[in-house]
Amino acid sequence: MVNHLLTTNELKVEEIYEILTDAKRFAGGMKWKPEGQMFTANLFFEPSTRTKSSFEVAQRRLGLEVIPFEVLTSSVQKGETLYDTVKTLESIGVNSIVIRHEQDRYFDELVGKVNIPIINGGDGCGHHPTQSLLDLMTIQQEYGQFSGLKIAIIGDIRHSRVARSNADVLTRLGAEVIFSGPKEWFDTRSVDISRYRPIDQAVQESDVVMLLRVQHERHQTKSSFTANEYHQQFGLTLEREKMMKPESIIMHPAPVNRNVEIADSLVECKRSRIFKQMENGVYVRMAAIKRSIESLEGGKQYETTYTERMLHSI
Amino acid sequence: MVNHLLTTNELKVEEIYEILTDAKRFAGGMKWKPEGQMFTANLFFEPSTRTKSSFEVAQRRLGLEVIPFEVLTSSVQKGETLYDTVKTLESIGVNSIVIRHEQDRYFDELVGKVNIPIINGGDGCGHHPTQSLLDLMTIQQEYGQFSGLKIAIIGDIRHSRVARSNADVLTRLGAEVIFSGPKEWFDTRSVDISRYRPIDQAVQESDVVMLLRVQHERHQTKSSFTANEYHQQFGLTLEREKMMKPESIIMHPAPVNRNVEIADSLVECKRSRIFKQMENGVYVRMAAIKRSIESLEGGKQYETTYTERMLHSI
Amino acid sequence: MVNHLLTTNELKVEEIYEILTDAKRFAGGMKWKPEGQMFTANLFFEPSTRTKSSFEVAQRRLGLEVIPFEVLTSSVQKGETLYDTVKTLESIGVNSIVIRHEQDRYFDELVGKVNIPIINGGDGCGHHPTQSLLDLMTIQQEYGQFSGLKIAIIGDIRHSRVARSNADVLTRLGAEVIFSGPKEWFDTRSVDISRYRPIDQAVQESDVVMLLRVQHERHQTKSSFTANEYHQQFGLTLEREKMMKPESIIMHPAPVNRNVEIADSLVECKRSRIFKQMENGVYVRMAAIKRSIESLEGGKQYETTYTERMLHSI
Repeated sequence: MVNHLLTTNELKVEEIYEILTDAKRFAGGMKWKPEGQMFTANLFFEPSTRTKSSFEVAQRRLGLEVIPFEVLTSSVQKGETLYDTVKTLESIGVNSIVIRHEQDRYFDELVGKVNIPIINGGDGCGHHPTQSLLDLMTIQQEYGQFSGLKIAIIGDIRHSRVARSNADVLTRLGAEVIFSGPKEWFDTRSVDISRYRPIDQAVQESDVVMLLRVQHERHQTKSSFTANEYHQQFGLTLEREKMMKPESIIMHPAPVNRNVEIADSLVECKRSRIFKQMENGVYVRMAAIKRSIESLEGGKQYETTYTERMLHSI
Repeated sequence: MVNHLLTTNELKVEEIYEILTDAKRFAGGMKWKPEGQMFTANLFFEPSTRTKSSFEVAQRRLGLEVIPFEVLTSSVQKGETLYDTVKTLESIGVNSIVIRHEQDRYFDELVGKVNIPIINGGDGCGHHPTQSLLDLMTIQQEYGQFSGLKIAIIGDIRHSRVARSNADVLTRLGAEVIFSGPKEWFDTRSVDISRYRPIDQAVQESDVVMLLRVQHERHQTKSSFTANEYHQQFGLTLEREKMMKPESIIMHPAPVNRNVEIADSLVECKRSRIFKQMENGVYVRMAAIKRSIESLEGGKQYETTYTERMLHSI
Repeated sequence: MVNHLLTTNELKVEEIYEILTDAKRFAGGMKWKPEGQMFTANLFFEPSTRTKSSFEVAQRRLGLEVIPFEVLTSSVQKGETLYDTVKTLESIGVNSIVIRHEQDRYFDELVGKVNIPIINGGDGCGHHPTQSLLDLMTIQQEYGQFSGLKIAIIGDIRHSRVARSNADVLTRLGAEVIFSGPKEWFDTRSVDISRYRPIDQAVQESDVVMLLRVQHERHQTKSSFTANEYHQQFGLTLEREKMMKPESIIMHPAPVNRNVEIADSLVECKRSRIFKQMENGVYVRMAAIKRSIESLEGGKQYETTYTERMLHSI
C-alpha cells in the first residue's frame, strides 16, 4: 500500500502523533536514511520559497536525490497532463513526489493510478498537510498537549489552505478553536459561525493567536480594505499584542505581509513562533517523507524496477 | 579523442550494440562510476520533462554532480553565444555536457573547439540519438534482434527528430521500415516514398507500430486537421489496434497527445511500451554517458585542469 | 562573528593574501571539507551563467548541499522582502548564502540581522568581490606580485562592478592603475581623472589590459556608439594588440561582446587569460566559502539549531 499524504483530515489521531514523534526525534538529531539511492521530485505549479526549499532540505537530510523540476521549462508547456508528468517521473525511477498545484484536489486523478507516494505540498484553497503538521508540532512543543488550549485562527479563512483543516484536526486533538477576521471573508458552509469572535476578544482569550496571510493573489475582486484598514481592524497591532495572555504565542504560516496581518516589530518578538514554525517544517517533512518511504519498503517496491521484475519473471 | 554523441547516423553498428549492451547491463543492476568527482550540466534551450529528468537520473545514478543551468536565468539573456556558454562551463570544470537546442546541428559550431564530450539531447528537427537508442533497446528487449522485423513509423515525419534517424539505423540493423501518416507532412527528399503505406495496412503488417507526436509547436501554418480528424485518419484508434498482429507492440516517444496519435485507453494497454521506453531511456543514457566519460579517461583529460597542466609544465 | 564577504574594500591586505593563498592551494589539489552536512543557497536576482555556475561547482567541490532557488518561482513573486527570504532560508537550516541583487548595497539591510554568512555575488553597479579576487589571482599567477605592475582598466567604468574596487585594491597591493575608455562614461567622483590615458597609450604601457564589458542592459539612454565605433575607438583591435608589451596579458570579466570590447580572434589568443580567469573563479570561491564556514565553525554556530539550543536550555 502506497502511503500518500494528501490531507490531514484523512489522518487518524495516532498517525498524527506518530508523525509528530518522528519530527521531534529528527529535531533532536535522529538519523534515518533509506537503503540505497532514492530519487524524489518536487512539482511546484505555484510560486513557493518556504515549502519548496523546506522539502529540499528535508529530502537532502534523508539522503534522497532530488531531481529538479521547473514547470516553466517542462513539457507541461507542451500541454502534458499532470497524470502523464507524474507517470513519466515514476517510469524514470523517481520513488516519491511532492506536488503543489493550483487546482483543488488535483490528487484525485492520481490516487490509485500511480505507484509512488505523493505528498501534497498544497492544493488550491484546499489542503496543505505538512503546514498543518508543523503548526501542530509548534503548539505541542510549547504546551505539551492540545486539550484545554484555545486557539484563534484569524484572517482570510476562505482562501486559506490550512484554516479549515487546522480547525478540524485541532478539534479532534482536544483543543477549542475560535475564528476572527472580516466576516465577509467567511464561508459559513465550512466554518461554524458560532465560533466567531470579535478580534479583540479572540486575541485576549487565546493561547495561540494563529494569523493567516491575506492572499492578495487569490482575491479576485478588489479587496474592500486597504492594508492599513485591515491592520487596524483585524491585524495584530502593537496594542492588541499587549492584550494577549502572558504565555500565549503568535503563529503565522508566512510569507508575512508586514503591517497588514501583524505589526512589523512583532514578527520576531518574544511571543512569535513564526521562524520557529519554518524550522519545524523541515522536521515534519522529514517525518512525512520517512513515512512515505517506509510504505514502499514494506513492499520492497522501491527496490525493483519494471525491468528487474521482467527479468525475474523469465 | 573526445567521444561526442551527436547523431545515430555517425555510430557504427558495433558501437550501437555496445551502447545497447551496457544499457541492458545497467537495467540488470550493473554498477559503474567514474573515479573522483565529475561535473556535468544539462543545457536545455527548449522545454523538456522527460529527456532532461531522464538524463538527471542517469547522471545521479553514475554519481555525477549536475550543475543546474536554466536558460531563462543565464547569461544567454545577455546575448552570450552557445560557444561561449559551453566554453565557460568547460573552464569552470564541467566534464561533460548535454545540450538540447532549437537550431538544427547547433553542434557544428562546437565540435573540434571544445574539449568536453557533448551528448545531443535533441537539435531542431534534426536528431535525438538517445531517443533512437532507447527505441532500439525497447525493440531488442521484445524481439531479441532487428532482422526480419517490420517497423511502421507513423505521423509527423517532417518535424520528427527521430523518424529519419530511426529509419536509417533500423535499416542498417536489418529491419524493414515503412511509413504512414499525412502525405503532405512528408518530405520526399528525406523519406523514400515507395515505403509509404496506407495507415490500416501499416498497422496490420508491422511488428512495431511507432507513433510520432504531432508537434503542434513546430507547425507554422495552421494544421489542416482537427485533433479528431487526425485521430480518425492517422491515429491508432481502438479499431486499428484490433487489426494489429498478436504479438506486435506500440511505441511513442511521448509526450502523447491522447486521442490524437493514439486512443486514450491504449496508452497503457498490454501492447504499449510507452512508459517502458521512458524507463529504458535512463539505462541508455547511463550507457551513453559512460561512453563519453571513458573517452576522457583514456586521455586522463578529466583529471587535469588547465592550472594543473601549467604547474606540471613548470 | 559571522564572516560576510561583501566588498573587497573592507578586506585587509593580509585577508586578501589569505584568500589568494587558499585559492592557489585549491588549484593545486588541496582537499578541504566542512564536517557534517552543510547547506547553502545561491540567490541570483539577475541573470548569470558564469558566477552562479562557478559558485555551484565550488560549493559541490567542498561537499556542500546546494538548495536550488529560482527567483521566478519563489515567494519573491508574492512580494516577500529580501530580509524575509534570507531569514526563511536561515530558519530551514541553510548555513551560508550567496546573493546577487540589482540594488546597490542590498546587504546593508541584512548585516547584523542574519546569523549566516553572506557572500556578495554582485550588487547593482557596486561590488563583486569574488570577481575582484579572481582577477587578483590571475595577475598573481602571472607576475608573482603586484608592486611595479601597471594595470589598465578600459571601458564602461561607471557601470562596472569591479572597476573601482579593483582599482582600489590593486593600488593597495602596490600596483599602478590607469584608466581608458569613453570619457563620458566616467564618473569623476569615483575615478581620479589624472589617471586617464588615451586608449593607445594605455594599451602600450600596461602589463595587464583589463577590458570591461559594455553593459548594454545598464545603459538607460541609447548609447552614443555603434558596436563597431566602440570597437574602433576603445576596443582591443587586432592593431592595438600588436602594440602591447611582449609579456603583457589580456583580461575580461566576461561575458565578452565579441568585436566590441575585443576582436573576436583575440578572445582565445596567447595573451588572453579570459577563460583562465573563469577557472580561477572556482578556486577563489572555494577559498571564500571556506573562510565563511570557518567563521561559523569557530563559534560552532552551524552545529546547533534553534531547537537544539532550546533543548539544551531546558
